[in-house]
Amino acid sequence: MLPLPAFDPAFTCQVIQQFIQEEVRKSNLQGAVISLSGGLDSSVVAKLSYEALQGKIRLLYMPYRDIASSDRDVQALADQLHVPVEKYTITGLANLFFQERQINDPLRKGNVLARLRMVTLFDVSAREKALVVGSGNKTEIMVGYSTWYGDSACAILPIGDLYKTQVKALAEYLDIPDTIRSKPPSAELWENQTDEGELGISYDDLDSILYCLVDEQYSIPQMIEKGFPEEIVRKVRTKMQKSYYKQRMPIICKCSNRTIGVDYRYNKDAQNAEEE
Amino acid sequence: MLPLPAFDPAFTCQVIQQFIQEEVRKSNLQGAVISLSGGLDSSVVAKLSYEALQGKIRLLYMPYRDIASSDRDVQALADQLHVPVEKYTITGLANLFFQERQINDPLRKGNVLARLRMVTLFDVSAREKALVVGSGNKTEIMVGYSTWYGDSACAILPIGDLYKTQVKALAEYLDIPDTIRSKPPSAELWENQTDEGELGISYDDLDSILYCLVDEQYSIPQMIEKGFPEEIVRKVRTKMQKSYYKQRMPIICKCSNRTIGVDYRYNKDAQNAEEE
Repeated sequence: MLPLPAFDPAFTCQVIQQFIQEEVRKSNLQGAVISLSGGLDSSVVAKLSYEALQGKIRLLYMPYRDIASSDRDVQALADQLHVPVEKYTITGLANLFFQERQINDPLRKGNVLARLRMVTLFDVSAREKALVVGSGNKTEIMVGYSTWYGDSACAILPIGDLYKTQVKALAEYLDIPDTIRSKPPSAELWENQTDEGELGISYDDLDSILYCLVDEQYSIPQMIEKGFPEEIVRKVRTKMQKSYYKQRMPIICKCSNRTIGVDYRYNKDAQNAEEE
Repeated sequence: MLPLPAFDPAFTCQVIQQFIQEEVRKSNLQGAVISLSGGLDSSVVAKLSYEALQGKIRLLYMPYRDIASSDRDVQALADQLHVPVEKYTITGLANLFFQERQINDPLRKGNVLARLRMVTLFDVSAREKALVVGSGNKTEIMVGYSTWYGDSACAILPIGDLYKTQVKALAEYLDIPDTIRSKPPSAELWENQTDEGELGISYDDLDSILYCLVDEQYSIPQMIEKGFPEEIVRKVRTKMQKSYYKQRMPIICKCSNRTIGVDYRYNKDAQNAEEE
């Protein structure tokens, strides 16, 4: 498949750091709070936020049961940044919930874990008056590989316009610890889960298809002409279509002339108001 | 203050019921799930959904500690609809969370309760393959009177374009039980909380100001000319500005030519794709 076009990690880091700085400033909050998983995305976001905010970040780590390898990777990053990590094991809370609600299905369990982490993360954000900085990337958002109102919940998305393979390149440039960069990406919603296993495609191939569909706007016939296998392209596009609801706000039933999200937008109104 | 313009409850109900039907159909799910609080908004949404979906709704009630009056009001609505209510008391879960996280602040507690209810509601939605129908109204959304990723989290908002006073009129038309219609609106995040007490303004006055600012697009000088007290108008506008972040998706740092939520929108792309 076609590789993504070359991009400049140094310039991209600079753009993202300015973005984080500016958004924290506009929010009138004291810094950022980031949920670390021990994986690549949250490590990159933590390091970028650290540099953008001169260290004014809080790191939170919320394992379900203790996974030795994740513990080690989270610690490696924290050591590199010299920032303490607040650890909160959600095992007790999650198990009580599973038991009271009689949940056995691994997918439902995984979604509950992601959402209980969100509850904790936003509470820490209120306690610390810090902005919740999310770790979603463009690949994940495009195919809906996240829990709605769970790990996708945040105020800003610094790497939300970068495909996973680009985040990997950024991680190398940022000198993220080796053990984090070399392990297979996993949402860790259950044991031995890997993203590529569950998605049924490698990130290299997925990013290549997404780049052509999204950024180049190729049609399916054009994709086939370029040599992409039709079946896989159609599968990816179906995933995109089925998960689009996660990319937008709840749909409001229009009953007036000025409906939120349809024909009422704050920016315009705020500007009008300031012009008095 | 100026009253809102007259509206036709019968026609509005018809529009909303068609909206609910259509959105459930498009989602390919089996019906709707609604979280009842015993209050006006969720009762109206439940009744509209019941009628739109020929009874294919699930009702969930998630009290923190048992509040006798809410129990009674939830039951009154369920009796009227002849639909069973699944009750899940979140006291145990919430208290464990408060204790483990050492949370004493009532506002933080209230937000945790709203979010734990969301976790439960979305799990029931997965279990039942039912669409989460939210109860937010236009007044609440405009002034940000809800918990982000908590009670505001849903798939669709049938009454999201109706001010609270309009929802009251709808409730009367729909013959919602008297006890629900006559009690003072409360988010019940803590004891004896009333919306109007906490907001510091009556819903009649708030809706009148919002209608003029939002729907009529009056400037502040125009509002004063119409006889609105400047201080109150400015307070309301500040609330609107400060809570606008809840009305939009997380902000993505633009790094490419096709950024989600900025210059990548699914509808257009889906159409292009279908045209092959």
